[in-house]
Amino acid sequence: MRLGVLIDGEAGDSIEVGNRGFNYGDGAFETVLVQDGRPVWWGEHLARLRRGCEALGLRMPDADLLEYEAEQLCADQARAVLKIVLTRTGHGRGYAPEPGARSQRVLSLHAAPPLLGSDYVEGVTLRWCETRLALQPRLAGFKHLNRLEQVLARDELANTGAFEGLMLDTTGRAVCATAANVFVLAHGRLRTPALRACGIAGICRDWVLTRTDVEIGELLPQDLERADALFLSSSLRGILPVARLGTRRYRPQPLIAGLIAQLWNEVPALAPQA
Amino acid sequence: MRLGVLIDGEAGDSIEVGNRGFNYGDGAFETVLVQDGRPVWWGEHLARLRRGCEALGLRMPDADLLEYEAEQLCADQARAVLKIVLTRTGHGRGYAPEPGARSQRVLSLHAAPPLLGSDYVEGVTLRWCETRLALQPRLAGFKHLNRLEQVLARDELANTGAFEGLMLDTTGRAVCATAANVFVLAHGRLRTPALRACGIAGICRDWVLTRTDVEIGELLPQDLERADALFLSSSLRGILPVARLGTRRYRPQPLIAGLIAQLWNEVPALAPQA
Repeated sequence: MRLGVLIDGEAGDSIEVGNRGFNYGDGAFETVLVQDGRPVWWGEHLARLRRGCEALGLRMPDADLLEYEAEQLCADQARAVLKIVLTRTGHGRGYAPEPGARSQRVLSLHAAPPLLGSDYVEGVTLRWCETRLALQPRLAGFKHLNRLEQVLARDELANTGAFEGLMLDTTGRAVCATAANVFVLAHGRLRTPALRACGIAGICRDWVLTRTDVEIGELLPQDLERADALFLSSSLRGILPVARLGTRRYRPQPLIAGLIAQLWNEVPALAPQA
Repeated sequence: MRLGVLIDGEAGDSIEVGNRGFNYGDGAFETVLVQDGRPVWWGEHLARLRRGCEALGLRMPDADLLEYEAEQLCADQARAVLKIVLTRTGHGRGYAPEPGARSQRVLSLHAAPPLLGSDYVEGVTLRWCETRLALQPRLAGFKHLNRLEQVLARDELANTGAFEGLMLDTTGRAVCATAANVFVLAHGRLRTPALRACGIAGICRDWVLTRTDVEIGELLPQDLERADALFLSSSLRGILPVARLGTRRYRPQPLIAGLIAQLWNEVPALAPQA
């Protein structure tokens, strides 16, 4: 369900066939939780969008303009997801960006995912995806519009009952879920994959990294399977404990419950809705 | 310059903001040379589009329908490029493809690139791109809509005077140009990179492979720099000899001139226009 769209500040519903987002995925995006008319973690989302623009050589729009347009869309929304897509202007034939190209802004408002209290107590079910993430440092860390790997991985979950799927890179290291980061708790220590060559540096992941000690490094599938616990992080869903990964079951861990409580305290929009 | 558009068979100019091509690059495409109202190598383009659909789990439209729509657009065109984009229908929030999604067809007609006789005699200038191609076997060989690597590589050529840029994969093997395949002539033998993990299996490349002996394998940058000659192949430009790669210059080779003559004989649309 889409609740509203602004294209370069104007109400609209469609983009040009020659759009370079459509033709090449030539752009970056963010999905932002909206609560009581306000985008959550707005500054963090803007900062990542800016990093994406730098990586793509894309012009970052004026932050005040983006905020003004976001406020226009979000003003009356009790709860929603704001999607911001920036694409490079120009034609849709020939890969070369046009000199002086600017960024087209497509802001759209969508229904927010429901946060179920039981998921945060009992945990969610994961499985491994067969689709791997390619190593491409130039495109790692931010949300660009080339997302076929995630589409293929997510499609593997159809009819499995799994809440999310974990992805390895093409060398066999665990990286993330299709739309969340992953953390491992083992021997009392937290670890999460480094994201130098693929994956997205999540905003909720950053929140965790600044609140507690986490070792950032290489994780193999068996590190996750043998861990005491796992959790996912996402700016739309917060911290989600994992109950199962394939046939492996994990028990609830006070350290993770404590992090969840701290997150809900600092960012109430991420607490399950009544 | 765009000369006409058909979207699912109807004249149109725009696509929905929720389009999955726009949001994820969830689709495949072909660019087809049109001469005297007819698509060139039509069967070959359709076959690659079909392989792309299979790789993406995308429904391949009826070939007769695509041909009918292509004919509608191309009928009065002496010379043009037909671009066919297929995207998965569905919403633009959430990676999961919808069950029963079909393919939206966007056919558009563009000006054909000029084929300059001098390029085919004197050869074109190449340089190495710094942007690497990631290894992703699931997406190799066909034209999908995730083309940021090509956009970034092509952007490196701005203001360099180079006609095309050669790309390495992330392990340092030479793969292709940003929009063409590459062949190497050394010690009287032709070689071209294997495209198991990245790159596009070009239709003109296939033509060369079926007309003469070519070794398909791994090529390092020095294999290209030390070669006696290089040429590019492309379904829009045919076979283009290479005059220079960076500071390295190559001399014309009768074997390549012979292949070019044979191609122009079999596919006259690829001969330089008077």
